[in-house]
Amino acid sequence: LVRNVTEPGPEHVPAAARVAVFDNDGTLWPEQPLYIQLAFALDRVKALAPQHPEWRTTQPFKGLHEGRLRSAGSWRTEGAARRSDRDPHRDDQRRVRWRRQDVVRDRPALTLDRPYTELVYQPMTELLALLRDSGFNTYIVSGGGIEFMRAIAERLYGIPPEQIIGSSGKTRFELRDGVPVVVRLPELDFFDDKGDKVVAIQNFIGRRPNPRGREFRRRPADAPVDCGQPWRELDAAGRSH
Amino acid sequence: LVRNVTEPGPEHVPAAARVAVFDNDGTLWPEQPLYIQLAFALDRVKALAPQHPEWRTTQPFKGLHEGRLRSAGSWRTEGAARRSDRDPHRDDQRRVRWRRQDVVRDRPALTLDRPYTELVYQPMTELLALLRDSGFNTYIVSGGGIEFMRAIAERLYGIPPEQIIGSSGKTRFELRDGVPVVVRLPELDFFDDKGDKVVAIQNFIGRRPNPRGREFRRRPADAPVDCGQPWRELDAAGRSH
Repeated sequence: LVRNVTEPGPEHVPAAARVAVFDNDGTLWPEQPLYIQLAFALDRVKALAPQHPEWRTTQPFKGLHEGRLRSAGSWRTEGAARRSDRDPHRDDQRRVRWRRQDVVRDRPALTLDRPYTELVYQPMTELLALLRDSGFNTYIVSGGGIEFMRAIAERLYGIPPEQIIGSSGKTRFELRDGVPVVVRLPELDFFDDKGDKVVAIQNFIGRRPNPRGREFRRRPADAPVDCGQPWRELDAAGRSH
Repeated sequence: LVRNVTEPGPEHVPAAARVAVFDNDGTLWPEQPLYIQLAFALDRVKALAPQHPEWRTTQPFKGLHEGRLRSAGSWRTEGAARRSDRDPHRDDQRRVRWRRQDVVRDRPALTLDRPYTELVYQPMTELLALLRDSGFNTYIVSGGGIEFMRAIAERLYGIPPEQIIGSSGKTRFELRDGVPVVVRLPELDFFDDKGDKVVAIQNFIGRRPNPRGREFRRRPADAPVDCGQPWRELDAAGRSH
């Protein structure tokens, strides 16, 4: 693929139009035993629980205390953790980002006793580097939170913030005591999953997939594999994998 | 500014983080006597009117026939023109884009008897080139339609589709006879204006403005001028200029 795209011939693509998009969870880093963003949200709930005795009787926190993870639901849990942690001077994007990055950097993974940031699939980072060396812009298009991924993707994958597409909460611009802030609201704005990933690619990148394009996936042995056309992977029922 | 950002010193910014955002209408090209996108939409209404006798009694078309432009409203007019022009095989994004580009290229402007595409402010294109030569990524952040601007911005300003931020309609991913398409729905998704431009910059680019950053505007003499900090231009009432 890279040779066909970069060398003269019928499949050649000009460098400026070379775009490669990657899923994140389960593709660039693991999604088992838990989505890492969910694990992080659970950590936040635990860390903040002593300041919130009311959580013992409020869902989804009550279920978490009782170990019923599934009852909480990943996205709702994270949103609730974020809301519970809010005060007027602490919830602008920069602060949320810093705090996430810090926790993700320092916390050991659930089962492997090492930081999440060491769980990146090395063959995929090598593929990202190969594509970039060949003139591709590499993007993440994931159901994960857009700001959560921006906190880690540059360091882990070499992907800058403007090449991250993900799920997002509603936000609002405000001046607080003359200081401009973008405030996160406790409401989902866009869930970047299934067919909506195609919608998001159009909205953020604005280029139609090359009909000769390919999707890369990992094989069980963790070697990236060229396995078909990305849009062919999406059927009317909206399955993305 | 460019010297301070590119040379070693307290205001230096690494090349990857150099971002410059520009308004479009009234900044890179004219917005008088009409927004060019609105003029284009009116052209489409006129061109399609013979096939739609019902428009003589339906708003906003009736008002347009009677010359009452203001009563129609720019965004609603364009949306209506798009809807009226729809059939199942013609309204995917590529087709809409191609048709727009074609009309913008060929049609003379309202008062100057030359194509819209020759109305670009040359000092601004020189500034865009200077910034890019200095390692900046140049973006448009405009209230104009995101796909309308993508149809012209690469050729007029050298700005690629993924660096255009604008207003957008809701879209939906579908397979039609096995062909994947992104279908435009007759509904506004995001109006990129005033304080929401800051929200959009955060969502698309994900970098906080440099507190030492500057906003470029045209002076009456059409020379670009460094005139202050972008976020300072936005107050709680949401004024952007």
